[in-house]
Amino acid sequence: MKTTHIPPDWAFEFHGHRCPFMPIGYRMGKLALEYLNVEREKDHGFFVFPEIGEGHPQACMADGMQAATGATYGKVLMAKTFYGKLAATFFHPQKSAVRYSLRPEFVDAFGKFEFFAYRKKGVEPSQIPQKLVDEVINWVYEQSDDSMFKIEPRPDFKFVPVKGSFNKDKCSICSEYVFERYLRMKDGKPVCIPCSGYEK
Amino acid sequence: MKTTHIPPDWAFEFHGHRCPFMPIGYRMGKLALEYLNVEREKDHGFFVFPEIGEGHPQACMADGMQAATGATYGKVLMAKTFYGKLAATFFHPQKSAVRYSLRPEFVDAFGKFEFFAYRKKGVEPSQIPQKLVDEVINWVYEQSDDSMFKIEPRPDFKFVPVKGSFNKDKCSICSEYVFERYLRMKDGKPVCIPCSGYEK
Repeated sequence: MKTTHIPPDWAFEFHGHRCPFMPIGYRMGKLALEYLNVEREKDHGFFVFPEIGEGHPQACMADGMQAATGATYGKVLMAKTFYGKLAATFFHPQKSAVRYSLRPEFVDAFGKFEFFAYRKKGVEPSQIPQKLVDEVINWVYEQSDDSMFKIEPRPDFKFVPVKGSFNKDKCSICSEYVFERYLRMKDGKPVCIPCSGYEK
Repeated sequence: MKTTHIPPDWAFEFHGHRCPFMPIGYRMGKLALEYLNVEREKDHGFFVFPEIGEGHPQACMADGMQAATGATYGKVLMAKTFYGKLAATFFHPQKSAVRYSLRPEFVDAFGKFEFFAYRKKGVEPSQIPQKLVDEVINWVYEQSDDSMFKIEPRPDFKFVPVKGSFNKDKCSICSEYVFERYLRMKDGKPVCIPCSGYEK
């Protein structure tokens, strides 16, 4: 059962290298859009919360989710939860939410490919022999959605983005613009966080 | 002085709409790569710290930075500082670091375009008349680098990414895989953060 949710070339170009994780995240994102019956997000109305963190492999999934859904980090539509899990919750305020996670059986089968032996030796994805990269990517493309993903509806999921404002003022020390929410007060004057010396 | 650092079509497709901020971030990223004399990052060796936050406009810049530099959120190479400032620090461990920020005079001139009147009324970028979008994007393309950006070398900038590990174990409650760094202990057994009930 071959998937049709294969990333376009530009998604690989964006990502920077060929690896199997970006395509897995891409597929997860496309399936979640279908599940929730929404289009790829042009503006600011769809949110993705990948459960990945730092200091572990397979985080590349999040780039595939950005590419598939349009819920990008720059548009403030994506935020990692730092749970260290291969899963994500997809949320549309006018629809609902759904969580997709990788099945442990899939992760186990996947981990046996030689691609991972190179990664564990510290070889970067762009330096791994093309044949081994294609082998694991093509294997992923051949797996069924059911064998890869656990799907959990999340009807009670809640998220309210912070209220936006265009207000800004200049820091009285460095004279750079600061959006109001991030202005701090020091010696009676508005300053930016770095000039304030405060942590946040 | 027309810039040559114009985003490719795929960068707009990735971003989801046409707006002037993504191209500004793209240009900032390309200039920083040139300044530091490095190539677009294929793997995991270049870091970008945009100073933007949430609840303010112009955050779209970060998507342009991802597209230009290859330092993507999914590859754990980009992290916002949440200072609410229109700036970013670009860091290559084997080279150096540089901070680019938007000059306040540029921000003021930029803010007079009709595009912003629509944004302030709450109109999403994809719904703003194409003519007004193109007007402001083309104006940005015509501005010189010097008139837009302040450049600050940051020779003392330090950042050490966390040490990575492939170790993982299953949560004893939900049976999903968790990378070791994020496993917690509860009643003597390893669990994931959501199952633990701990905040982090």
